[in-house]
Amino acid sequence: MASPKTIALDAMGGDHGPEVVIPGAALSLERQPALSFVLCGQQPRIEAALAAHPALRAKSRIVHTDLVIAMDEKPSQALRRGKGSSMWLPLEAVKSGEADAAVSAGNTGALMAIAKLVLRPMAGIERPAIAALWPTVKSECIVLDVGANIGATAGQLADFSLMGAAMARAVFHIERPSVGLLNVGTEEMKGNEDVKAAHSLLKSIDALPLEYKGFVEGDQIGQGAVDVVVVEGFAGNIALKTAEGTAKQISTYLRAAMTSSVVSKIGAFLAQGGFRVLREKMDPRRVNGGTFLGLNGIAVKSHGGTDAFGFASAVDLAYEMADSGLIARLTADMDGFHHRLSAAAVAGQQPRDSTGSALGKA
Amino acid sequence: MASPKTIALDAMGGDHGPEVVIPGAALSLERQPALSFVLCGQQPRIEAALAAHPALRAKSRIVHTDLVIAMDEKPSQALRRGKGSSMWLPLEAVKSGEADAAVSAGNTGALMAIAKLVLRPMAGIERPAIAALWPTVKSECIVLDVGANIGATAGQLADFSLMGAAMARAVFHIERPSVGLLNVGTEEMKGNEDVKAAHSLLKSIDALPLEYKGFVEGDQIGQGAVDVVVVEGFAGNIALKTAEGTAKQISTYLRAAMTSSVVSKIGAFLAQGGFRVLREKMDPRRVNGGTFLGLNGIAVKSHGGTDAFGFASAVDLAYEMADSGLIARLTADMDGFHHRLSAAAVAGQQPRDSTGSALGKA
Repeated sequence: MASPKTIALDAMGGDHGPEVVIPGAALSLERQPALSFVLCGQQPRIEAALAAHPALRAKSRIVHTDLVIAMDEKPSQALRRGKGSSMWLPLEAVKSGEADAAVSAGNTGALMAIAKLVLRPMAGIERPAIAALWPTVKSECIVLDVGANIGATAGQLADFSLMGAAMARAVFHIERPSVGLLNVGTEEMKGNEDVKAAHSLLKSIDALPLEYKGFVEGDQIGQGAVDVVVVEGFAGNIALKTAEGTAKQISTYLRAAMTSSVVSKIGAFLAQGGFRVLREKMDPRRVNGGTFLGLNGIAVKSHGGTDAFGFASAVDLAYEMADSGLIARLTADMDGFHHRLSAAAVAGQQPRDSTGSALGKA
Repeated sequence: MASPKTIALDAMGGDHGPEVVIPGAALSLERQPALSFVLCGQQPRIEAALAAHPALRAKSRIVHTDLVIAMDEKPSQALRRGKGSSMWLPLEAVKSGEADAAVSAGNTGALMAIAKLVLRPMAGIERPAIAALWPTVKSECIVLDVGANIGATAGQLADFSLMGAAMARAVFHIERPSVGLLNVGTEEMKGNEDVKAAHSLLKSIDALPLEYKGFVEGDQIGQGAVDVVVVEGFAGNIALKTAEGTAKQISTYLRAAMTSSVVSKIGAFLAQGGFRVLREKMDPRRVNGGTFLGLNGIAVKSHGGTDAFGFASAVDLAYEMADSGLIARLTADMDGFHHRLSAAAVAGQQPRDSTGSALGKA
């Protein structure tokens, strides 16, 4: 494909600002020469960082602003005083059509709040979600929601399933991605009411653009049991951070173990090629970033503390989603799904209550 | 200490029954010669397994029953037909005072249901919880609830804090264990209403037998940020299984990485002492078992698929909790806590609603 796409960047976001964002964009441009950029932030710092990257300079337009949202700013405050900031402008560029996607390494809560206000949720979607790419023993899967909201009704969990499937189609190039609902067991009687109702709902609607696989448990995420894992944001965020913490913990063990004796140290030295393979597998920069799904536009959140390599992964992800026509396809999917839901409700098969939960089964 | 204690075992529980339970008990007896056992199950199979363990034979009484709860039996069915089974009898031995603790590797849901019925929740405790020992880079911590219930009110989360602290006192020998509430962020505004209300409640009550540290995130569990991590059972179960899955996933990566080249293989061979240290750190058998907290007696659940080494860890845990006088101390703690809560409510400082949630702050 490699169609020309424009990505708008919050050049000031994250712990390092332009010093990471600019080299990251340059790296992504090397991989995708069809890219161009809108760089939003303090022009002098952006210009300084661009000096070392003439190819990127030639493909970029700088939009100057002095206003920057702090990493610890509350979403409500960011909404009040953030208009015209380096985080706000990229989202407006997406809205106006100038850019195909926005990327920021800034404060997640602020970015979500501003993105919701500027891009607006898609028709029929009550709640956008944050989706994370999660490494598995097979390759990668998508987990959502990892923290946009606390709690989700059955209807919202079903929406998340379609949103995650659309993203899987865009980034994994699978036409009918498999989807599982994260639960505390795989039997039908397990879980809370919302999860059980979402299960009935997903089973009962025909011709969904995904393959619904039922419940999955926490240990099946990393096994790659499904392409998309759906969960409400409280448990999803805890799962994501617990997995990150466990990986870090095992790295600590591994370092200690490999220096526990002189012979182990020699062995570790010889095995360093193997350890490099392991580090690459476990490298959080490779799957950097969360994606906001369910808005009328693409917005990707990069980790605040990442380096240029990690930021480039987030830009790559934004490009892939834009290039695949994710938004148009997801809009059509959601339309079809809600249409089928309403038809079922009219036929008395699948009434929905006011919270969007399925109350019956077909 | 090493006071004489009797542990009642479900000899038929788990994937292997007496062939794992008996050698496991024998291993634990070697470490704690003051132990004696009540072995419940099919006498011929128990006798056959005991033949190789004369020391254990001498310290055991066998209670024969042919009735066994299947690993996939529903809790409701286990309650209906389980009386007199190898899972039920050990709990009755605890209730009657013949045994100081019960251990089963059987079906978790059935064991929880029967334990609740036979031992009954402690006065003032609405819901027992399942606590897991969780390895950290420092040593271990306790996480509860990992799946006894779905959801928890603020009052129940506060009860879990006291229950976990009592267990930490028993097994880690820390007089004032540190406690954190698992949440999606550490700022006060984060989380759902129950978690926020539990936070206010724990901050507002003085002289708790624990040190309340506020919110912790998923990645802080394995860092050993606190001795006790409190969470409702849905997110807690997902966190536990996600961590187990991540550890398994990294083992897979590590094996693949260490066989990725001949030099890596030689290095891995030389480093095998180091890998042994790592395997021991990551060995799930060392922290085998969940503990039911909040009942009038000690019941420990061993993993169903564990081996004798793992089952022995579960017996060790049961012994330590019995030996430390956990139940008496926890009963006193809960009494004091609920008394202070009521006093605060009467004084109009800390009203509780009907669900046990704190509505105000002191």
